[in-house]
Amino acid sequence: MKLVIAVIQDKDAHRLLEGLMQAGFGATKLASTGGFLREGNTTLLVGVEDERVDEVIGIIRRTCKAREQLVTPLAPMSGSAESYLPYPVEVQVGGATVFVLQVDRFEKF
Amino acid sequence: MKLVIAVIQDKDAHRLLEGLMQAGFGATKLASTGGFLREGNTTLLVGVEDERVDEVIGIIRRTCKAREQLVTPLAPMSGSAESYLPYPVEVQVGGATVFVLQVDRFEKF
Amino acid sequence: MKLVIAVIQDKDAHRLLEGLMQAGFGATKLASTGGFLREGNTTLLVGVEDERVDEVIGIIRRTCKAREQLVTPLAPMSGSAESYLPYPVEVQVGGATVFVLQVDRFEKF
Ligand code: NI
Ligand code: NI
Ligand code: NI
Repeated sequence: MKLVIAVIQDKDAHRLLEGLMQAGFGATKLASTGGFLREGNTTLLVGVEDERVDEVIGIIRRTCKAREQLVTPLAPMSGSAESYLPYPVEVQVGGATVFVLQVDRFEKF
Repeated sequence: MKLVIAVIQDKDAHRLLEGLMQAGFGATKLASTGGFLREGNTTLLVGVEDERVDEVIGIIRRTCKAREQLVTPLAPMSGSAESYLPYPVEVQVGGATVFVLQVDRFEKF
Repeated sequence: MKLVIAVIQDKDAHRLLEGLMQAGFGATKLASTGGFLREGNTTLLVGVEDERVDEVIGIIRRTCKAREQLVTPLAPMSGSAESYLPYPVEVQVGGATVFVLQVDRFEKF
């Protein structure tokens, strides 16, 4: 048995929990924040049999992989809104940091 | 030294922390939620000497074991409240998922 | 790769995150409370290469070590405030409990 600890972005949490659940994995969600800049993190704990670790890692990779997204910024708060021409910019979203730990003993009551 | 990570129901957390404290174990309580359905989870971290792991596991089992409880449901929100005859139903409460991890190094400052 | 789990006081969290960041370590901050008495705890997860564990431990020790602090208590809620003579008392603050765990596998997407 392994314990997978995955730190992901909040916005990916719902899809990841769905993906894990569909594959038969339960997960516990801890409230977390990144150090300083990376607000809005979620930490998931997933208990998994050794032979299914690759599967869990694959689901996390597919769901949370860092990728670029087009975002249209809001008009600036100050300055002339009339001269503001919004156009989409690419920002990086997602990403996951995953630790797999050996479980010495597992109990379920 | 081992690290015990126990995911339990919120409603069992107070009694479990008391039981652990009475036996001399400190615990750290993380805010958590289960994946989707199982809202109201608590995750406890307990550092414990190898030879006392069974004792901690025993306290968790006794306190949090899944069991049936009689609950009287509230009257339904819609429909005629007058015709509503409340009677207790059995629901399952409690339960614990416990991971025991080997600690490589332990420090207390 | 190791996973360092450090339980510290909230009031030390900002300085510790800064110290870790300056040394090039990322950290994830989990909301936590101590069992019963020790409210206001923070649990940090720090992934670290084996050869830098001592460095992380050193930063935690220097930043969070239990120490005495002079605190001037507030006037008591009841009783005669006029006869209340405030003088500073020493209280213990800080402290850290640190678990270092072996990481079986580490992934970053
Ligand atoms: Ni959905
Ligand atoms: Ni009580
Ligand atoms: Ni600062």
